[in-house]
Amino acid sequence: MTVDNEVPRRHRVVVIGSGFGGLFAAKHLKRADVDVTLIAKTTHHLFQPLLYQVATGILSVGEIAPATRIILRKQKNAEVLLGEVVGIDLENKTVTSKLLDWERVVPFDSLIVAAGAQQSYFGNDHFEAFAPGMKTIDDALELRGRILGAFEAAEVTTSADERQRRLTFVVVGGGPTGVEVVGQIAELADRTLAGAFRAINPTEARVILIEAGGAVMPPMGPKLGLKAQRRLEKLGVEVKLNTMVTDVDYKGLTVKEKDGSEHRIECAVKVWSAGVQASPLGKLIAQQSDGTEVDRAGRVVVEPDLTVKGHPNVFVIGDLMSVPGVPGQAPGAIQGAKYATKQIKSELKGADPSARKPFKYLDKGSMATVSRFSAVCKVGKLEFGGFIAWLAWLGLHLYYLVGGRNRIAAIFSWFVTFLGRGRGQMTITERWVFARRALEQVRDQETPRAIG
Amino acid sequence: MTVDNEVPRRHRVVVIGSGFGGLFAAKHLKRADVDVTLIAKTTHHLFQPLLYQVATGILSVGEIAPATRIILRKQKNAEVLLGEVVGIDLENKTVTSKLLDWERVVPFDSLIVAAGAQQSYFGNDHFEAFAPGMKTIDDALELRGRILGAFEAAEVTTSADERQRRLTFVVVGGGPTGVEVVGQIAELADRTLAGAFRAINPTEARVILIEAGGAVMPPMGPKLGLKAQRRLEKLGVEVKLNTMVTDVDYKGLTVKEKDGSEHRIECAVKVWSAGVQASPLGKLIAQQSDGTEVDRAGRVVVEPDLTVKGHPNVFVIGDLMSVPGVPGQAPGAIQGAKYATKQIKSELKGADPSARKPFKYLDKGSMATVSRFSAVCKVGKLEFGGFIAWLAWLGLHLYYLVGGRNRIAAIFSWFVTFLGRGRGQMTITERWVFARRALEQVRDQETPRAIG
Repeated sequence: MTVDNEVPRRHRVVVIGSGFGGLFAAKHLKRADVDVTLIAKTTHHLFQPLLYQVATGILSVGEIAPATRIILRKQKNAEVLLGEVVGIDLENKTVTSKLLDWERVVPFDSLIVAAGAQQSYFGNDHFEAFAPGMKTIDDALELRGRILGAFEAAEVTTSADERQRRLTFVVVGGGPTGVEVVGQIAELADRTLAGAFRAINPTEARVILIEAGGAVMPPMGPKLGLKAQRRLEKLGVEVKLNTMVTDVDYKGLTVKEKDGSEHRIECAVKVWSAGVQASPLGKLIAQQSDGTEVDRAGRVVVEPDLTVKGHPNVFVIGDLMSVPGVPGQAPGAIQGAKYATKQIKSELKGADPSARKPFKYLDKGSMATVSRFSAVCKVGKLEFGGFIAWLAWLGLHLYYLVGGRNRIAAIFSWFVTFLGRGRGQMTITERWVFARRALEQVRDQETPRAIG
Repeated sequence: MTVDNEVPRRHRVVVIGSGFGGLFAAKHLKRADVDVTLIAKTTHHLFQPLLYQVATGILSVGEIAPATRIILRKQKNAEVLLGEVVGIDLENKTVTSKLLDWERVVPFDSLIVAAGAQQSYFGNDHFEAFAPGMKTIDDALELRGRILGAFEAAEVTTSADERQRRLTFVVVGGGPTGVEVVGQIAELADRTLAGAFRAINPTEARVILIEAGGAVMPPMGPKLGLKAQRRLEKLGVEVKLNTMVTDVDYKGLTVKEKDGSEHRIECAVKVWSAGVQASPLGKLIAQQSDGTEVDRAGRVVVEPDLTVKGHPNVFVIGDLMSVPGVPGQAPGAIQGAKYATKQIKSELKGADPSARKPFKYLDKGSMATVSRFSAVCKVGKLEFGGFIAWLAWLGLHLYYLVGGRNRIAAIFSWFVTFLGRGRGQMTITERWVFARRALEQVRDQETPRAIG
């Protein structure tokens, strides 16, 4: 109760983004005496680590992308707004969000920016039309159409060269995502599609992983990297290390080997997972803070308490923050969300903002599946691979999937695909056929991104 | 064994379409001494009766659209080609199919045309951009984006009028599809979305069904029609009978009442399920046969043996055939497929084509779900509604879903939605937001169809 007539206003927290950072930030504020506004440009919380399974026909979109507002339905202090953040004013403490004809200026007391990152083409943005990345639901559905569609297109061509080109699949980038998607393309061809065609033999598809460095998944260390590579090669994947992609067009791509020689790989499907570029909101924030920089990937170099210099109420977390030793993965985002909300909550109860302990990242390890029943895991100094690592992968991903319904559905989908050889989500839209046709017409020219 | 060097050629059956007619035709030829080529412009077999559940977030696309070539994988005498049929030559017995840069002329001895139908706007094709139909997977995903997106757009607007417009949903056409989709929009708003917004109350959404005739679902008879109507009204649906749609634009539609008065309904989401137009292949075939006509919907008026006059080897089945008393639904297509393939098989064994018994349609009844736990069923003279009818609907649809995997997945999805209030497939793509933006800009102008 206040004595005068002024209505006491609750502390307002604005969260930008609905990924692991944004969603967990909102959730951790559930019992706090604050009003939370979560602004995101998609209506769902995307479980990005499983996106490659949507692209390769194992999971449905609903299983990995539940509606954010349904997750937060019962959290009465949280509202969810669909919109694109087009402005952040650190001085006046406002965020400007747009949707269609609507523009809203949302005031904040604390701001948590978890706007994430997108694919980076290192300045060659025209590659994108030919080699889509895998960051959004749209990307995954487009890739599903391209991958399954390439087999269909190979089935009907009468030219042996063109058949070979259509049956060649190239994944650029040997990080965990690249390894996972290339492994699943190989298993899709070898197991799910085997016997389903008459003119072609899908098991003869050529599946290639291109990595600029000297090993796949460098952060996993040379031992596990080699283990993953051997497993991929056993699946029939050609792993090309020390190889740079210098050009991409409709018909294929040009690579440069370590010795400087260049040659072409003719291929229909190209998947880009070679790098990330942080949301432009990172730069927007850094510009407003004296002494705050962004790194080469556009990530904000934050203070030890994950804020930007001079603005202790503005936290940057997840893929948008640059903290040495913290990889751009779910655990870092979740821990950042927990840390930021903890500061907000304790300072509301009187703690001193200048006495914050620095953020400390707890490395719980990392993992990647190479194929069914086979994964690699690194937990501290412990490194292991194979079936045990795969079981660990299975358990952990189920644990992090949001919602009991999605966990049950995913278990069932995995049962079908990994024990059987079926895939429950091979549906591609008609639109894909037309997009291919459009691409076919433009051939090697630059083109607006094809529609999945 | 043949005595001379000539390789004995098997009888070639070309099937056009992968719906109920086309798929079942191919399957019924499994043990026949023929080569089957199934040509379709989608890669899946679509279970159209459940498309409305994809549009309203209950089912995933994979559950109702499994890949045709996987279904037919083990049928060694069948090949599946993705392609659009652009030519049929009854004289020379060839079908011309196109995909991308590829064109193939496929010869046939027998032809089964099951190319289906699409939405009809009765000459007002410009309505389509504003009021999409529900015939394909693309349609359903687009509608899902529009329906769920309208609630998001209503949440952020500050104009009361615009909020009301965005929360108004109109379904045009009171046939089974119209009734089913309008019922699910009402349940989505009332049950699934209740409590998930802060500025709007989804249960206050206005949901309207417009029907030009004097009753919903006329073929079901007045008693069941009224029953369905009462149930819809109990869900809060406004049922407007004897009402014609005379214009549709971005902002809403204009209707004409029975008394001749015209008025506007301002609404964001418009779903068109008012009529069907058969595939243009119908006309293409009829033109080549003396004395064969197409009806007003473009369906081929076939002979008593489902063939076109003068071409006893060319069968037209499913939604593309016009036979009095046979509704354009799955059972008619399946029975047509069985009949046509039976003639082909027995004549290969020596039966006389001129002694064919005419096709006889066995009316197994029809049904439609109005809402969870409530359906209407008509089997011969037996008419019933309510929970028992709903159980019958459930059993029958599970029976006809192709593949054990899809049956189990659908049961689970229905369990979640009908016993609980969740919906597992509410994911909409980012692209939708941009499509909406494009539509917003063009306002009332004619526009290319929006992207879901």
